[in-house]
This record gives sequence, structure tokens and C-alpha cells, in this order.
Amino acid sequence: MSGILERLDAGEIVIGDGGFVFALEKRGYVKAGPWTPEAAAEHPEAVRQLHREFLRAGSTVMQTFTFYASDDKLENRGHTQRFTGRQINEAACDLAREVANEGDALVAGGVSQTPAYLSCKSEDEVKATFKKQIDVFVQKKVDFLIAEYFEHVEEAEWAVQVLKTTGMPVAATLCIGPEGDLNGVSPGDCAVKLVKAGAQIVGVNCHFDPVTCVKTVKLMKEGVEKAGLKAHFMSQPLAYHTPDCNCQGFIDLPEFPFSLEPRILTRWDMQKYAREAYNAGIRYIGGCCGFEPYHIRALAEELAPERGFHGLEMHTKPWVRARARRDYWENLKPASGRPFCPSMATPDGWGVTKGHADLMQQKEATSEEQLKALFDKASKGH
Amino acid sequence: MSGILERLDAGEIVIGDGGFVFALEKRGYVKAGPWTPEAAAEHPEAVRQLHREFLRAGSTVMQTFTFYASDDKLENRGHTQRFTGRQINEAACDLAREVANEGDALVAGGVSQTPAYLSCKSEDEVKATFKKQIDVFVQKKVDFLIAEYFEHVEEAEWAVQVLKTTGMPVAATLCIGPEGDLNGVSPGDCAVKLVKAGAQIVGVNCHFDPVTCVKTVKLMKEGVEKAGLKAHFMSQPLAYHTPDCNCQGFIDLPEFPFSLEPRILTRWDMQKYAREAYNAGIRYIGGCCGFEPYHIRALAEELAPERGFHGLEMHTKPWVRARARRDYWENLKPASGRPFCPSMATPDGWGVTKGHADLMQQKEATSEEQLKALFDKASKGH
Amino acid sequence: MSGILERLDAGEIVIGDGGFVFALEKRGYVKAGPWTPEAAAEHPEAVRQLHREFLRAGSTVMQTFTFYASDDKLENRGHTQRFTGRQINEAACDLAREVANEGDALVAGGVSQTPAYLSCKSEDEVKATFKKQIDVFVQKKVDFLIAEYFEHVEEAEWAVQVLKTTGMPVAATLCIGPEGDLNGVSPGDCAVKLVKAGAQIVGVNCHFDPVTCVKTVKLMKEGVEKAGLKAHFMSQPLAYHTPDCNCQGFIDLPEFPFSLEPRILTRWDMQKYAREAYNAGIRYIGGCCGFEPYHIRALAEELAPERGFHGLEMHTKPWVRARARRDYWENLKPASGRPFCPSMATPDGWGVTKGHADLMQQKEATSEEQLKALFDKASKGH
Amino acid sequence: MSGILERLDAGEIVIGDGGFVFALEKRGYVKAGPWTPEAAAEHPEAVRQLHREFLRAGSTVMQTFTFYASDDKLENRGHTQRFTGRQINEAACDLAREVANEGDALVAGGVSQTPAYLSCKSEDEVKATFKKQIDVFVQKKVDFLIAEYFEHVEEAEWAVQVLKTTGMPVAATLCIGPEGDLNGVSPGDCAVKLVKAGAQIVGVNCHFDPVTCVKTVKLMKEGVEKAGLKAHFMSQPLAYHTPDCNCQGFIDLPEFPFSLEPRILTRWDMQKYAREAYNAGIRYIGGCCGFEPYHIRALAEELAPERGFHGLEMHTKPWVRARARRDYWENLKPASGRPFCPSMATPDGWGVTKGHADLMQQKEATSEEQLKALFDKASKGH
Repeated sequence: MSGILERLDAGEIVIGDGGFVFALEKRGYVKAGPWTPEAAAEHPEAVRQLHREFLRAGSTVMQTFTFYASDDKLENRGHTQRFTGRQINEAACDLAREVANEGDALVAGGVSQTPAYLSCKSEDEVKATFKKQIDVFVQKKVDFLIAEYFEHVEEAEWAVQVLKTTGMPVAATLCIGPEGDLNGVSPGDCAVKLVKAGAQIVGVNCHFDPVTCVKTVKLMKEGVEKAGLKAHFMSQPLAYHTPDCNCQGFIDLPEFPFSLEPRILTRWDMQKYAREAYNAGIRYIGGCCGFEPYHIRALAEELAPERGFHGLEMHTKPWVRARARRDYWENLKPASGRPFCPSMATPDGWGVTKGHADLMQQKEATSEEQLKALFDKASKGH
Repeated sequence: MSGILERLDAGEIVIGDGGFVFALEKRGYVKAGPWTPEAAAEHPEAVRQLHREFLRAGSTVMQTFTFYASDDKLENRGHTQRFTGRQINEAACDLAREVANEGDALVAGGVSQTPAYLSCKSEDEVKATFKKQIDVFVQKKVDFLIAEYFEHVEEAEWAVQVLKTTGMPVAATLCIGPEGDLNGVSPGDCAVKLVKAGAQIVGVNCHFDPVTCVKTVKLMKEGVEKAGLKAHFMSQPLAYHTPDCNCQGFIDLPEFPFSLEPRILTRWDMQKYAREAYNAGIRYIGGCCGFEPYHIRALAEELAPERGFHGLEMHTKPWVRARARRDYWENLKPASGRPFCPSMATPDGWGVTKGHADLMQQKEATSEEQLKALFDKASKGH
Repeated sequence: MSGILERLDAGEIVIGDGGFVFALEKRGYVKAGPWTPEAAAEHPEAVRQLHREFLRAGSTVMQTFTFYASDDKLENRGHTQRFTGRQINEAACDLAREVANEGDALVAGGVSQTPAYLSCKSEDEVKATFKKQIDVFVQKKVDFLIAEYFEHVEEAEWAVQVLKTTGMPVAATLCIGPEGDLNGVSPGDCAVKLVKAGAQIVGVNCHFDPVTCVKTVKLMKEGVEKAGLKAHFMSQPLAYHTPDCNCQGFIDLPEFPFSLEPRILTRWDMQKYAREAYNAGIRYIGGCCGFEPYHIRALAEELAPERGFHGLEMHTKPWVRARARRDYWENLKPASGRPFCPSMATPDGWGVTKGHADLMQQKEATSEEQLKALFDKASKGH
Repeated sequence: MSGILERLDAGEIVIGDGGFVFALEKRGYVKAGPWTPEAAAEHPEAVRQLHREFLRAGSTVMQTFTFYASDDKLENRGHTQRFTGRQINEAACDLAREVANEGDALVAGGVSQTPAYLSCKSEDEVKATFKKQIDVFVQKKVDFLIAEYFEHVEEAEWAVQVLKTTGMPVAATLCIGPEGDLNGVSPGDCAVKLVKAGAQIVGVNCHFDPVTCVKTVKLMKEGVEKAGLKAHFMSQPLAYHTPDCNCQGFIDLPEFPFSLEPRILTRWDMQKYAREAYNAGIRYIGGCCGFEPYHIRALAEELAPERGFHGLEMHTKPWVRARARRDYWENLKPASGRPFCPSMATPDGWGVTKGHADLMQQKEATSEEQLKALFDKASKGH
């Protein structure tokens, strides 16, 4: 099995997974607020199942569920630990590897920003925090490392420097938008710093929606190229629309974290994201908070050589069968109240029920001809 | 362990679960269009995990994943079967029972509307279809039966009549709104027919949002009481806002089924639903399509005697800690574009980063006093 | 010149005018709050000009600007009178007649609800208040009388009874919606009471938008017909959208009266109103608060036998010339944020400027052929 | 009476008037499309009345109604002329002077962009077109000249050069936004060119909303100051919200010109504009298309030393009297569907009618104490 750099060097598309803390919070295994990953040790079946769903959806990387699994974070704000950081990191590596082996996926060990840095601890202290997690990753033989979710490029550089000591490939993503990190360092400068620190793959994750993230990675790519450096690029955005965010992203929205639902991206928004990321030269394309397995599936489908619309053509209602085509979904303006969309929709429904020919039981597959008749009917405003 | 009727007769609240076909479609185990439950036999680990999440969230009923598991539906529109109806129904019963035993939950065997009825098959033929599923439920010793998701009350009556032959308690829910079934039979009349057919619990499921479903069940209750009959009442609505639906509900919305995201209810919408359903005299309160485990958790929490806001007070950002209180979420108008909500939000964010006192690492739990200071700061528009 | 009843009996459409208090408040001649018509005496040139604009737009009735011109209202809440009620009523009659004579228009003397009634004065006292205005209308020989803007049908009946003593035709309109008057008397019952009191024309004015007013007059018509009575019907709605009003109409909206702008109807909303009112059997079709002369012009054009789109085809920009057709405007969903409309628009603009063929000076009228080319270009989304 | 430059040099605020073509189109005296000012000659009473309304609202400049009154424009696209350009320009000057003399207002003669320029006529030909209008202005002794509504700075420079030959003060406004003129010349560069051509007052008019116009004039001011030049600044924006416009402004919006209503600014938007323009150093503050007299009144009131809320405290309904305070209107988010506003409102209304103490007739003025009681009642959400 080829490694992450071999794949990217060969021009392959790498499909990442989605964010575990949000998905598992909704499933009842993570607490909003601390957002820490004890479930890796305490409820392995739930974490394994989520890994498996992402794998089946098309992810080719399984990230260890080690977000915020540094000892200082686990202790933060009165959180009573039932598991040591080491136990959590080990369990997370085992789960990722178990599921990765069910398919053609790589395992990536991940570290993220620390309370130590925010509390102005020294570079050595912050690096020591990363080192403890890295030791587990080395011992568990993950395939590569990711330093992700950093708001300050300085801390990310420190992380990359620690990760590089392992000799493994290193990716680094900041949770920043086009305005740059929290100290105002531009995306281009951030990317240059990360590459110089040793990262072979750079980009962004979390905090902003796909549109904003692709825009930010473009700025990073320009920065890297202007500096005469080379890197691969990745993006793992939110599955939430964030057109109204400031530099710190969705954390600052008044709806964070319990009323974000109206902002969730549809699978068609995701296909658009996949295409735009690809066109921008990004080849490691995944997601973060808000992503469910079907969002990853949409990314994978958009970038797969062949796709179809199997399923909807077997729906009971004929006007829903008439939606079994890409252009219907591409052109739909969902009733979302977003600036270019209305806030309410006009129901379809063709006024037929029991007994109508279109509703009859049919054992043969819906034929192309039957579908065409429905598409025509629909496009005539029924 | 007491049965469903004992619980309801004693005035207990029964928390239902959420809809499996939509939740498992998003996880990659159900195909949109057919919406059939082969996963019960093919991917038991995924179905078991979802049952478990609902149980942990507070559900006290595990419905067998047998929606559309009648033989005629499994064959409909060219669907090639890898499993017999019997295999699927049996596997579904085993999974529900396994997880129910992990807690204090009941198992309910469910049947739903059939293509046979829509295709104008005879009453005997339609009833024979239900009978095949019931035979499995009897053999597997489920605790009670549910006839759910019927658009025509006549077919639901036939189902109830078959279910009653088992001697088990019977619940019946139609997927209708205040305008009644697809033939225009009013909710009140529908409920009377179902009770007369033998159902001890009646109500609605699917097709409409909580507001609409509670309204419809109220009309059912009025009808039953006016007829001098008695019954328990249940509602298992969508987790999607549907203010703009016609009589056939969300199926007819142009966004069905792939762009419903902007309509998803928040957990705070759910708490409101739980309270309103309770106030309307509904005691079996659950959900259907769109419900994720955290939605059920919100219902259970709202109706539990004691609740808290554990979690958010440990968030890194102080302005998010300042949201660790119910009134913040109750009064929030999320940027959803719905009629009384704006479509964009103004980010919070208090303009502090690394080094600020509010961001320091802290090993002790956040104190009440610390929270009060944050709440005050927030209410001053910071 | 034939009278109002002759016209209506002959099946003619009568186009009313728009509301003077709102139009003149915006022009600087009426004070919001008191809404009284001293301008008739103090600034006759402004009132005359507005009459003339409505006449030129197609109004066939000039209502005297005597709204709230009863003595008790003029004195209400500390308003210092510079003119007696008689002076104002006389001046208003003179102005209406002067402009009516410039065209084929009738003059209608109007009375409206009184503080006397709200303050629980006796029937005799309230009637005496109306009588003082009527005396002027008789002396000034107006063509017919209108009792308008009544929230309580009882007071309107009293007004009609006073008006009938003149022998002139009497119209009566309440400012109510489908829920009826402020005491809950239904529109049907209200209409019957007014007809029995002697009104030959009944309907509604003010407080609600055209959709709501047409709906209310339909209920009135049903009531009158069910009672075996006969009447003509009229509607003079607001030019503001009011889908969110309660029984007391736009007065209660938080935007009343200084932030109603986003609710203003377009001329295309008006054409729809004219057609729907006509189809509902309403033949006296006019407007109230918010109407500007161009709104009346839209009503008149919609109901005129022949119409064209003269004007836009001479606009400088070719993409605006491409809008010189009814279907463009009929199908446009203006960026209004209303439930079925987006809140923002995507600009047109064909990316041409100085020097482009489409922008050249042209002395000949735009030809049909030139327009067709532009319409085609526009419909190609370009 | 002091001239325009004396006033501005002394630091006085000059309040402009609103746009005549849109206001008179709505009143029935201008045709949408050609937008030409024949009404000055044909319907002087209507033009005089509009001048007077602006004067009474607080305008201290009366602009001659000579927009698009160049001979080439009057002939454009098959427009049959009933009046010569000279007749129209003369009549417009007489009307402006007549009304200006009713108050302390100045008369400004205006020229605007020509079809000659768009059709690539030579500089001499274009200048000759301006010259014909200027000759009338000189003869009629206007107080100063305005070159307004230019999309290309080059044409505006030519106009200024012609205007300067009169020796009168010259103002010049482009209809551009922050992106600059249609050839991409930046606002700063445009302003420098206009000042160098001889304009003493520069700024923008039409095409964009106040927010955008103030932003653009700020850029102009920066450009002028950076170039070491001096000028006075003016803005005469639309009364339509245009957050979604491209470089050519509202002309390109699909709603132009017949469905712009949902975008109309409220008087409270106007007060905000007046304050922001003032704070940006703009001292000639007026309006363009969409402005009605009450909009100008709002500008004048905001910038007057003393203001009150006379009027609303005399409204019949007590909950409307409770709106007789600035903070109510400043904090209101009108139901406009714009991004930060909801699309529907919740009606107020205190559930009282005939007979309630708050509704009683009262001859004395509403007292401060009475108002305070109402304000309190309202702020208690009731």
C-alpha cells in the first residue's frame, strides 16, 4: 500500500474523513464544551462504527480520534479524567488501524492546539506536550502525522518541528480564513512558515465553510509558489455555511454550537466544494465539524470517474422519481433563507393517490423511458 | 418490566426513538428511494449501534427496523432482494431486543403502508401482507405492535385489525396533517376509526414537523373524546420544519430528500416540541425522519425532572462559556432565514487571544461565580 | 355624467383613488399620529396636485380629503386647531370638485370613525358628529357618500343611517380582515348589517393588503348573497404587504408607521390585485394608505381593454430594454426576503459600455425586431 | 444670500434635493425608459409642487429639472419631441428659481451624461451638447452648476471644462461605486481628475445606496488629499438598498426599475446616512432616485441642532404612541428579509378597544408622564 506522499505525488486524490467530535457529540459520546476524545477508550464500538462509515463513504485516510488528547487539555477546566492521555491515544490508534485495514486507507495521527500555548507556556513546555502524543503514534506505527486546528501559526510551527523528528510525512492545517491567523499573519505567510518548518502538506481545517476554505488555501498556494517552495495542499472545512463569520470562524457565531442546523451543507453543496477544491489544485480533500458520512460520500462521488443516480428512481411518488437527475439538484435553490434562496418552498405533488398508474407496484426496474416521461412532466411544472 | 399500556396508564412519559431509514441513509446503510431495511440482516453492527445511541439518549422503545419490510415493498421497482422479508424481520427483532435489554426499553414490532394497497389489491391480499410480518413479531416475542406511516386511514384500519389478532397492545399512527388523510378524512374521524378498529394508542408519525403533528394529534384527541372513546396518544414527527407543506407533507417539498438540511430542527426546537406535546396530553413522544440521537436526548432532557448545562462551561472561548444557560438558547433566533429569523448573524467574539486571563488553562471546574461574570459580560453585549 | 350606481349597475369598473393621509405625510402636509386633513384648507395646492395625479392615473372617483375631519377628532390629544371642521370640509369639497371636473370623475364625501364612539359617547352624540360633516357635503353637492375606516360595524351602521338621510348613494367600508370587526362580528354579518342600514356599496378599506382585502370582501359578498340581499362591492386596501397581521391590521405591526417601506407593493403586485378583485366580483377597486399615483395607474391599466409597454424600450441599457415585456415582470421574484423570494438579487448587466452597438444613439423608435433580439438574449441568461 | 462655496467654506451643511425623474415617474409626469424632463415645460404645476415639497422638507438647493435634457438625448430611440431642448431648460430654470425664492435656497443648473459620448462622438461634439444647456443656465442666472450622473470620468471632465467657462461654481458627481468608473478608474483618481478639470465640489450621485456612496466619497476624499488638492465633497445616493450590486449599480438589478419597492430606505436609514456622511466630511448631502420629500426631511432633521418627535404621541392607539421616541426606531429591525432582519413581524396591539382608558378622547396634549407610562408598558413587552 502506497503512502500519503506517494499518492499525492502520483496525482491521486486523497479523500479525508469528517470531524469526529461533532459527529460523536450528536451520537452521545462527546461532551460539547470540552470536546475531548475519551470515547476512544470508553466506547470503542461507537468510534469504530464512525470510522467504518467514513471508510465506506470513500475516505482514504482514517484520522486517529485524538483531537484535544493532550494531557493539559484533558485536565482543563475541572474535567475529571477517567483515562490517561496515553490510554486514549493508544486506543484511538488501534481503532483507526483496525478499520483502515478493512479498506485501502491510511492512518494519520493527529495533534492539535494546546491550552499550554494559550496560557503562554514556554516553547519547550508546549513541545513536550506534543511529544507525549507523538510517542504513541510512533509506537503504534501510524502512516503519517497531522498537526491540525491551530489558530496561531507559531504554535503550529512548533508542532510540525516535533512531528518532523519522527521521520514520518507531516501535514499541517490551520483553522484560519483569508484574513490569516489570530495575530494577522496572512495565509500565504503562514503556509510558507509551515513548509519551512517541515510540513509536506499544508492547508486549513475547521472554522469556515468550504467556499472560504478553498479561498484560503488558494492564498496559501500562491504564497508557497511565490516563495519558490513546494507543497501539497489540503482542506478540511466545516459542513456549515459561514458567510457571516469574522476571523475566528464559526466559534464566534451566536448559533455555536447548538443551533447550527440551518447552516448545514447539502450533499450538492459538497459536490460543488469537491469540484472547486480540485480546480484550485487541492488534492487532499476532506471535512471537519458538521460532516456526516453522506457528506464524504458526496465528495467521493463528485471526484469519482463514474457516477449515477441509483435509488431515487425507485421512490413511490412519481414526482420524487422525477428528481433522479443531477440537474434537478444542481439548480435547486433550497428554501433556506440564505441571501439568494427563498425561505419557503412551493410543494410539488401531482395530485394523485391510490389507484393512479404512476403509483402502481412494479417488479421490473424503472426504465429509462419511464424516467424520461417523469422528467418531462416535472419540467412542464408538472 | 412493565408493558407499554401499564406505563401509559400510570401516567408515565414514553420516549420513542427516531427514524431509522433517514439516519442510516446518511450513515451509508439505506438507499434513498427504496428506503428499505435490508441493513438489519446485512449490516447488523450499524443498526445495533443506532439502537444503542437512541437508548443512551433516553428512548424507552426500540422499534424493530422493519419499515417497508413487507415482501411486496421489497420487490417494488426492480429491487433485487438479497434477503427474504422473513430474514430481515427476524434480524430486526433480534437487534432491537438485544439493545432493549441493555436498558429499560420495550421492543415494538412495526408495519407500514404497502404497495399492495396503492395498487388496489383486495383487503384480503393487503391483510395477508401484514400477516407475514406479524408472524415473525409473535414468534420473536416483541412487547407491542405499531402500525405506522399510513396515508389512508382505511389501510391503517386493516393493519390494526390484523395486529389485534395477536392479543398484543397496538399503536397506530398516520402520516397526516390537520387536513386529514389523502382522501380527506379528518384527523378526528381517523382517530375514531383506528380506536374502533382496536388501537389503544393513536397518533401521527413522519411527514410533518412537530408543530403540525402536535396540532394534528390534538384534533385526533378531540375526535376520540367527542365520540366518547378512550385512547393514549403519540406523536413521532419529522425533525424538519415544514410550515410550507400541503396535505402530503415533506415528500412533496422540492427539497425532498437531498436538500432538507436548512430545515433541520435544533435541540431547542425539540425541547419546545416535547413541552408542547406534553401539554397537549400526548405521553408517547418520539421522532421520525431527520431525528438524530441528540434530538431524542433533547426530548428526554426537557421532560426529565432535573436538568443541567454541563459541558459548555468548559469551552475554551469565554464567550462560548457565556452561553452555558438555557435562556440564551431559548431566546436565540438562529440565522435561518425562516420568517421570524434573520438569514445572517453577527459574530460574537470578545477580541481576546493568547495570554488573556479568560483563556488561561484552569484545572479547577469553572465556578458559578466565574460563569456569572461571563453571563453579565455577554448580556452587556459584551 | 352618470352617477356611481348607474356606473356600477351598468357593469362598469370604478377605479378609486389612493389614501391621502399617507401620501401627503410623505410630501410634508400631514402629521403622522393625528393624521388630520388641515392641509385641505392650509395647503390647497398640494391637495389639488395629488387629486390631479390620481385623476391622470385613472381614478374615476375623487374622495374629499376629509378623513378624520370630525370636530372631535380635530380636537383630540391637544391638537390646536387653526381651522374649523367646517372650513376643512368645505375646502376639501371644493378641491375634489375642481379636479373631478378636469375629467370624468365623481366626487365622494367621506366620513370615518370618531373618538366619540371609542369614548363611549351615546348614539345621538356620535351621529351628531357625522351630521356636521354631512351638512357640508350636501351643501357642496358631492355625488355620493362614503362611510369608511370603521373598526366596529355598529359605528359604521350609525354613520350609514346618517348618510342615508341625504338621499345620496351611500358606500360603506370597514377596516377589517377575514376575522371580522374588533368585536368579532364576521365580514358576512358586517356586510349584511351595512346593507340593511342602507348602504348600496359595501366592502373594506385600509388596514390590510390586497390579498387579505379581496378575501374579506368575498366573505362579505357570500354573507350578503346568503341573506338574499343585493349590493355592489368595493375594496380599497393598503399598498403594503401584511401577511403577518392580526385582526387590527398594519397599525399593530412594529414597523407602523415609519418603517413600512420593505412592504410596499410593486405595480405588478397591483395588477394582480386588480385582476383578483375583478374576478371576485368587486367592481369598485381603489386603494388606501401607501398608494401612490403609479399604483392606481397599474390598476387602471390592468383592467383597461388595451395596454402596452411604452417606455422601457427606449432605455439606454440594452438589458433594461430587454425588460420591456409583461412576462418579465410577472415572473420576477423581487429580492424582498418575503417567504417565496430571495433577499438578494444577481445583477444583470451585459458587460458592455461606450462604443458597443447596443448602446448607440438611435433616432428611430426601437423596432419590434430589435426588441425581439434583446428578449432572446435575455432569456438565454444573457 | 450667500453662494454655495461661501456656505461650504463656512462649514455649513448643504441639504440637496431628491431625484426628480423617479419621483415624477411615480406621479405620472415622466416616462420610465427615456427618463426625460419634458414635464418642466408641459406640466409645470407638477414640477413646481415637487420643488416646493423638497424646499419645505429642508433642501437648500433646487436643482433645475434638466436631467437628460440635452438635444441628443431628447431625440434618442424614437422619442418624438413636443418641446425643444431650449424650451425645457428654460422652463426648468424658471420653476427652480420661483420656488427657491420661497425660501433660502440656491438654484443649480445640471447637465448629465450624453448618448453622444456613448456613441463615440468627438470631444468637440460632446462639449457642444453641454454648451447648449449651459447657455440657458447663464442666461437664466442660476447660482451654480452641477455635472452629474456620469459613468465615465472622461466625459465628466469634458463637462466640467465646459461648465468652468461660465465662471460659476462647479460641482461634479459620478454615478460610480468603490470599484470606480466603467473603465475601472478608481474613485480617488476620478476625484483628482475632476478637481484638476476645475470642479470645486466633487462626489457621487445615483446608482448606489447611501452606505456605498459614503464609502466611495471617502475614497475620493483620500485621493484628493493624497494629491495635495482641495475640494468640497457631496453625495446624492439612491433611496434603495443595493448591497448586491456590481460596478454599474441598480440599473443592473433585475428589479430595476419596476420592482425596487422592497429596497426603499426608511427615514431611519436616512438619518443614519446623514450622520455617516457628516462624519465622513461630506457637507453637501442630498439624494437621487427613490428619494421622496420625507427622506430629505429625515436628513435635515438628523443634522439640525434640535429635533423632537411631535406627532406620534397623538396617535389613537396607545401602543403607537409608545413608539414616539427615537430609540424605538433606531433599534427596530424592520421585517424586510434583508440579511440581518427577519421577513415577518409579530404584531403589537395591546388587546384593548372601545371603552378602554388609553383610547379615550383627550383634549389636552399627551403629557410627558402619560408617554412615559406607555414607553414603560411597551418595553415590558407589552
